[in-house]
Amino acid sequence: MLDSTDFKVADLSLAEAGRHQIRLAEREMPGLMALREEYASTAPLAGARIAGSLHMTVQTAVLIETLVALGAEVRWASCNIFSTQDEAAAAVVVGSGTPEAPAGVPVFAWKGETLDEYWWAADKIFDFADGPNLILDDGGDATMYVLKGTEFEAAGGVPTAGAEDSEEFKVLLKQIAASIEAAPGRFARLAAGIKGVSEETTTGVNRLYRLAEQGALPFPAINVNDSVTKSKFDNRYGIRHSLPDGLNRATDVLIGGKIAVVIGYGDVGKGAAEALRGQGARVIVTEIDPICALQATMDGFQVDLLPEAAPQADIIITTTGNTRVLDVDVLQTLKPGAIVGNVGHFDEEIDLAGLSRLPGVEKIEIKPQVHEWSVPVPAEAGLGRDRTDFLVLSEGRLLNLGNATGHPSFVMSASFSNQVLAQIELWHAHDDYGNSVHRLAKELDEKVARLHLPALGAKLSELSKEQAEYIGVDVAGPFKPEHYRY
Amino acid sequence: MLDSTDFKVADLSLAEAGRHQIRLAEREMPGLMALREEYASTAPLAGARIAGSLHMTVQTAVLIETLVALGAEVRWASCNIFSTQDEAAAAVVVGSGTPEAPAGVPVFAWKGETLDEYWWAADKIFDFADGPNLILDDGGDATMYVLKGTEFEAAGGVPTAGAEDSEEFKVLLKQIAASIEAAPGRFARLAAGIKGVSEETTTGVNRLYRLAEQGALPFPAINVNDSVTKSKFDNRYGIRHSLPDGLNRATDVLIGGKIAVVIGYGDVGKGAAEALRGQGARVIVTEIDPICALQATMDGFQVDLLPEAAPQADIIITTTGNTRVLDVDVLQTLKPGAIVGNVGHFDEEIDLAGLSRLPGVEKIEIKPQVHEWSVPVPAEAGLGRDRTDFLVLSEGRLLNLGNATGHPSFVMSASFSNQVLAQIELWHAHDDYGNSVHRLAKELDEKVARLHLPALGAKLSELSKEQAEYIGVDVAGPFKPEHYRY
Amino acid sequence: MLDSTDFKVADLSLAEAGRHQIRLAEREMPGLMALREEYASTAPLAGARIAGSLHMTVQTAVLIETLVALGAEVRWASCNIFSTQDEAAAAVVVGSGTPEAPAGVPVFAWKGETLDEYWWAADKIFDFADGPNLILDDGGDATMYVLKGTEFEAAGGVPTAGAEDSEEFKVLLKQIAASIEAAPGRFARLAAGIKGVSEETTTGVNRLYRLAEQGALPFPAINVNDSVTKSKFDNRYGIRHSLPDGLNRATDVLIGGKIAVVIGYGDVGKGAAEALRGQGARVIVTEIDPICALQATMDGFQVDLLPEAAPQADIIITTTGNTRVLDVDVLQTLKPGAIVGNVGHFDEEIDLAGLSRLPGVEKIEIKPQVHEWSVPVPAEAGLGRDRTDFLVLSEGRLLNLGNATGHPSFVMSASFSNQVLAQIELWHAHDDYGNSVHRLAKELDEKVARLHLPALGAKLSELSKEQAEYIGVDVAGPFKPEHYRY
Amino acid sequence: MLDSTDFKVADLSLAEAGRHQIRLAEREMPGLMALREEYASTAPLAGARIAGSLHMTVQTAVLIETLVALGAEVRWASCNIFSTQDEAAAAVVVGSGTPEAPAGVPVFAWKGETLDEYWWAADKIFDFADGPNLILDDGGDATMYVLKGTEFEAAGGVPTAGAEDSEEFKVLLKQIAASIEAAPGRFARLAAGIKGVSEETTTGVNRLYRLAEQGALPFPAINVNDSVTKSKFDNRYGIRHSLPDGLNRATDVLIGGKIAVVIGYGDVGKGAAEALRGQGARVIVTEIDPICALQATMDGFQVDLLPEAAPQADIIITTTGNTRVLDVDVLQTLKPGAIVGNVGHFDEEIDLAGLSRLPGVEKIEIKPQVHEWSVPVPAEAGLGRDRTDFLVLSEGRLLNLGNATGHPSFVMSASFSNQVLAQIELWHAHDDYGNSVHRLAKELDEKVARLHLPALGAKLSELSKEQAEYIGVDVAGPFKPEHYRY
Repeated sequence: MLDSTDFKVADLSLAEAGRHQIRLAEREMPGLMALREEYASTAPLAGARIAGSLHMTVQTAVLIETLVALGAEVRWASCNIFSTQDEAAAAVVVGSGTPEAPAGVPVFAWKGETLDEYWWAADKIFDFADGPNLILDDGGDATMYVLKGTEFEAAGGVPTAGAEDSEEFKVLLKQIAASIEAAPGRFARLAAGIKGVSEETTTGVNRLYRLAEQGALPFPAINVNDSVTKSKFDNRYGIRHSLPDGLNRATDVLIGGKIAVVIGYGDVGKGAAEALRGQGARVIVTEIDPICALQATMDGFQVDLLPEAAPQADIIITTTGNTRVLDVDVLQTLKPGAIVGNVGHFDEEIDLAGLSRLPGVEKIEIKPQVHEWSVPVPAEAGLGRDRTDFLVLSEGRLLNLGNATGHPSFVMSASFSNQVLAQIELWHAHDDYGNSVHRLAKELDEKVARLHLPALGAKLSELSKEQAEYIGVDVAGPFKPEHYRY
Repeated sequence: MLDSTDFKVADLSLAEAGRHQIRLAEREMPGLMALREEYASTAPLAGARIAGSLHMTVQTAVLIETLVALGAEVRWASCNIFSTQDEAAAAVVVGSGTPEAPAGVPVFAWKGETLDEYWWAADKIFDFADGPNLILDDGGDATMYVLKGTEFEAAGGVPTAGAEDSEEFKVLLKQIAASIEAAPGRFARLAAGIKGVSEETTTGVNRLYRLAEQGALPFPAINVNDSVTKSKFDNRYGIRHSLPDGLNRATDVLIGGKIAVVIGYGDVGKGAAEALRGQGARVIVTEIDPICALQATMDGFQVDLLPEAAPQADIIITTTGNTRVLDVDVLQTLKPGAIVGNVGHFDEEIDLAGLSRLPGVEKIEIKPQVHEWSVPVPAEAGLGRDRTDFLVLSEGRLLNLGNATGHPSFVMSASFSNQVLAQIELWHAHDDYGNSVHRLAKELDEKVARLHLPALGAKLSELSKEQAEYIGVDVAGPFKPEHYRY
Repeated sequence: MLDSTDFKVADLSLAEAGRHQIRLAEREMPGLMALREEYASTAPLAGARIAGSLHMTVQTAVLIETLVALGAEVRWASCNIFSTQDEAAAAVVVGSGTPEAPAGVPVFAWKGETLDEYWWAADKIFDFADGPNLILDDGGDATMYVLKGTEFEAAGGVPTAGAEDSEEFKVLLKQIAASIEAAPGRFARLAAGIKGVSEETTTGVNRLYRLAEQGALPFPAINVNDSVTKSKFDNRYGIRHSLPDGLNRATDVLIGGKIAVVIGYGDVGKGAAEALRGQGARVIVTEIDPICALQATMDGFQVDLLPEAAPQADIIITTTGNTRVLDVDVLQTLKPGAIVGNVGHFDEEIDLAGLSRLPGVEKIEIKPQVHEWSVPVPAEAGLGRDRTDFLVLSEGRLLNLGNATGHPSFVMSASFSNQVLAQIELWHAHDDYGNSVHRLAKELDEKVARLHLPALGAKLSELSKEQAEYIGVDVAGPFKPEHYRY
Repeated sequence: MLDSTDFKVADLSLAEAGRHQIRLAEREMPGLMALREEYASTAPLAGARIAGSLHMTVQTAVLIETLVALGAEVRWASCNIFSTQDEAAAAVVVGSGTPEAPAGVPVFAWKGETLDEYWWAADKIFDFADGPNLILDDGGDATMYVLKGTEFEAAGGVPTAGAEDSEEFKVLLKQIAASIEAAPGRFARLAAGIKGVSEETTTGVNRLYRLAEQGALPFPAINVNDSVTKSKFDNRYGIRHSLPDGLNRATDVLIGGKIAVVIGYGDVGKGAAEALRGQGARVIVTEIDPICALQATMDGFQVDLLPEAAPQADIIITTTGNTRVLDVDVLQTLKPGAIVGNVGHFDEEIDLAGLSRLPGVEKIEIKPQVHEWSVPVPAEAGLGRDRTDFLVLSEGRLLNLGNATGHPSFVMSASFSNQVLAQIELWHAHDDYGNSVHRLAKELDEKVARLHLPALGAKLSELSKEQAEYIGVDVAGPFKPEHYRY
């Protein structure tokens, strides 16, 4: 049985490499570093025991060590079986002997976990001697683990998995069963001790809203995802950075002069379109929301239907968060040599599953995360060719993660500063929040922005008292009504 | 006594010129024209009697004639003593004999009204035989007139104006008194008949929110101002267009290569900064809101303090909606030849009142709406000069209106389509709304956007049923949660 | 007979208004003002007697007064019958009593000259007591006048005009005949005295190259037009400024979101495309030169054929310098309401002459310089309409001049600084130049750029001696080989 | 002794991988593929025996196989000891059995050659049975080898290397001596047989101009470097692509919101500045050429001095082609964490040699091609810190090569199409060229552009005969005068 004492990645040379990367990342995470400085003496998380489940990267290491620097005890797992950077995990486990990184922060994560290992790790993060009192979650697995465990424990045992249940669900049931068996009543104790959860992503937030609607949320949740400094920064400026990065690392193809189709003009699509135009591509946008479509036209982009735009595209990027937006029919009309990628939503957006079922389809690996698909073209398409082939990046998963390195540290610093403030809020003011889903208060959102300005050389002006009164706000903010759109 | 029958601007040659401009404007107002077509047969405003108070321009003429085409009876005044385009007013009064512009839509507005005439006109718009049942307002004067009239009538008469009351308030009191005297009980009847008001601007909306908080709003109000297709289009894309237009018409100065300071990075500031950069200026932004400041940096702009940025500026534009953001101290540090203008908020942003009180200040009219101010520079400023001089556009009022022609028709088409939908909503569903301030439903906001796409050659995609379910929306929208920021 | 002593525009109140504008323009013409300062004490043009023929605008007034400040005697006419700004002409004639603007600089120009008056004025600029010794020309009329006069004088008289000769040529012959009769041998004396000409435009330069090829150029010519600081600034950045300015003043139509076709992607087209994109239009480029076409694609623009692009255009702009690039066939396919304008070349680019010959065409003046053309559409066009109508700006002439105010002063400062340096060069070094056409030396081109940097807050770095040697240039420049393209 | 028969990289699995990459690259090199198609039947290079020396990459493989497809015999070496992609070399050696890639094209190149091996390979490319008759060169080494060999052979032997001679020169002398000894008179025969050289780079071109000035060039040379489709595309659009690519792969640091200093605003600097702005950075430019500086201001960039700009920079990029533009003094003022890189010129631009001599400097490898330098800061700098540290990419060498993959195939297609046309020109028309350096005729430059348009979906318009006459060109081009700047 694995244990944190013989933890896989606690390797000293890995840890040293990770520590180095953490040091570089700290420079690009001014929000987290400013929070450490601001709260160095008051330790607002003293007493907090945080069960964390979020991609175990170098940036997350800076988050973890910030939580520790603010007084928390922390145990950590990754929320994805592939996303751990082992050197970061190792560095956190080994620590650096400094106040924010004492030895011994338990991390249960490594690159390439099995599903068994994944849910084992999810269990491990709750193993505080006195139980956890906060969850920091990304995608909702940690929260679900506790809630399902509690439900099944109360029901007297896990249900029998049905034929239609996913492999993952079966593993989850097995882990819960093992946990209940090992320590009966533990889930009830866990759930009772938890003061709240802060959630990072849309997916996790949507789960929480559903739980809250069903009255099944036993503690308050803070929706970090919809802070302005998360959604409008992460989605827009993060993608603006990482989309061309992923395209370049995957293909080395000139973006300038090419025709790029961006499917969706939400924040992710806006960032994608801006990045591609910034590299000299001609961008065509497709949209289903007329407001976003009108924004695209006003920003100078052609807005067209996909069946008309796709056959001329050199690059097609999905950004919608929806399913099968690039379907088999459209894929068959692509130009030979087109590049297809997704930065919107896991692996739902491009219907590669459907494509692979098409007779005569071939898939060749050009290099890891870059595949050439050779596909028959029906005569009805009227394209004058009977086959086409195109490059698919990261097998339709998020190419900015698969072909590049995801969001840069600076962008994650904004997200994670929201997480830290949410944890402080939950720890100190949980009683002020009902058992529903809350957005972080605007003044905290503004605070996160404020912490990132000095590093960019930006100087913030201040309202005079007279001006603050004139517009009916406090000199210190918040400055805008809740419905303000930025 | 003036009357609509001998109405000042009902001049046939003026009307002909106005009709011509209306015809051109109709082409640029696809939203209104699409509403006419959609509702041609059902006349959803049949029975509505709308008292309108909004700048009597060519675009407003298209709005008025759209309301008429949808079945409404309409009476109109301008909400500003200077903003009427007489040819537009004349054309509406004269009509064109077509269904949407039959002769005889009474308009009480001309360029250069006195305050007496202004409030006389405000009274006239309520003179429907059976009383009005809807108000369409811009800035809130029409609404205030009814509410104050009702209040004073109930109190048995208007109060005596105090020494500190403004001239305008005294004129208002006089007009209300005359109205009460002429027809006792009329205000109570007016207020009782009104089913609701739709309001165009921030100022008017703020007044309405205050009334609603005080429980003093006797009918529902729809806040058109905060529709996405109003605030994010009008403010951003309208200013992007009209700011350089105003600068050019006023000064003919090359924008390229110049240093421009944009005070404020809200929607107006974003449009201003984009326009100036699009002309090759180097833009420096000042901000008090850290989130907007961070957006400015991410968009590539320098964010600096005004005292540091102003002395190097060739062009300074205020966009804040706040008071005295460009104060006397900063004005004295400007470079000789700098250009100063406001696109944010009436005439509060630049402290010209303060400046004019400074000993030794001179103001020379270069041409209408362009003045050169010559200003002493205190030795403490350390600038090595004892005077400076700079150009002030439109006396600190909105330069896009004063030096150019305001928002283009296309932008107004979006605003006004919201108005039309708000009027239909109030007319048909007023009972569903409480006596408070409501934003227009997102599906109507989306509808406005949808109506403007074909004119731009944009083609909107449609969700499949499967996709709509996947993201939990209806195929026809609305597509986003209320808090979505676009 | 007109004379400079009773010169039409020498009106004191006009002159005062003109002086005011000149003062403002001086601020935006830092190159000329720097030349005045640099050469204040040495008067490098002392002894020069310059016959100038160039649009008599406010900017030209600053040029004239700079030439005078450098010691020249100057006489001036406009090179276009419509382009004179009377207040500028008056101000120059009246002078200001300062060294650079003493009373009495003779100007023979007013807005709206007849052809007789135009050529009378062209004659007058040569009436120095001792004859002129330099020409400063725009378009080549002044140079042609001397050369044709000399030719005809030597031939014993002007030829008889043929039936096919233009009206203008007949007037020219008449003026030359009158001049020969009044002072026999005067043209020979004029031509003998002239040390050189500096020419402003492409048209004039082309004439000079032809003369030089024929051996018919009796003095050196400097081609100011092809200085980098002329052609790449004037054409590109001037148009970037004045195209949207002209569109706005003419039509008030929103540019954002519209489809704009730019015909030609030379320097003018590049400036036009950049300006339109900067306002949020979607720009389609048409090109005949594959290199420029490839540049357009790399800059992110769609490059398409005109018959395909024109029918979807909201705005079509010609920038080519060629003839009939927008022909009748294409004009008939335009969308109702399209806007058509030219910033390329006089009135050749749009075939309005051809269009006006089409049966059934109507032209309505919307306002001066804005006409609506209503045009039949042939059934073969397959557009489903039998007429269309569109707006034509400035009757197909340069819309940036006709609907706006042409190039801003700052841009003209670069052009005119080249002119001043060319005049100094011709005056001091005419013997070093053969009787052919020369470009201004690169160090002078660089000097012009250098003079404009401080006004923009730009600070120029300096090469170290080691670095200059490394790249084989002088520390002071010039820095690039002749064929360098910038 | 190495030989092509046991050539190092002729490895079948390498060759297969290389063939795959060549196939993908062919799609992005439409110019070369179009030339193959155009000349498939006429074989214009039949009889040509080309000695080629140019980075042996995948793109070069496509060039080589194009030359072969056009009828040439080819032998190849790399012009840099590190730049060979072994799989590309192997694929060319092995061939594909197709007409353009028959087995047996000898390539003498591998990644990581010694100097001995490098000059051995340089000798090998001339070993045609009947001698070569054309050189295709990059940097001039192949040309120099023949000329020096001829010179020394004629002088009776190589000179004795002096103490001050470089190691490389000694190896060159040794190789020439060996060659002379092995085959006396061979160099004279080689030089006599060569009809011309086409040269790729500035460095090589400058060498050729010096030889031509000295009368030491025994055959014509074509300067491919200064074709518009080379210099304005390669430099500008190539760097726009590869600079952010290199920064991202090296550091993963967010570019958005950062302050970037670009040293130099030539074509490379223009591409760099555009790329960084396109990612949301605020770009400050430094320049020594006032014309380029004025362009930078007109494009909206701040132009400042390096000592003022550098201390606030997050990213500093050199683009000048000059030496020590980033010197030790400035490096010591950099912010901790700044990123320093060069895309201008080999390793001269950043004075790392000088920096490494500074006492107390430390250099840590973060990963290959990314080093952290820790540097003492003198008290006089007044920066309040006694050390700083910054990241240096690719040890100051070209970061777009060292940290990314250099110019994309599409850009190289333009360069290499010029090479192919230059080789055809030299082969067919060598007698029309004197023994000096020529630029490729404008019609060929235009042809290269033309060949790349269809792949980008761009459609080229055609002049009518009337229009061509109007502007004095041929319908088929060339369209612009020699001095046109694009």
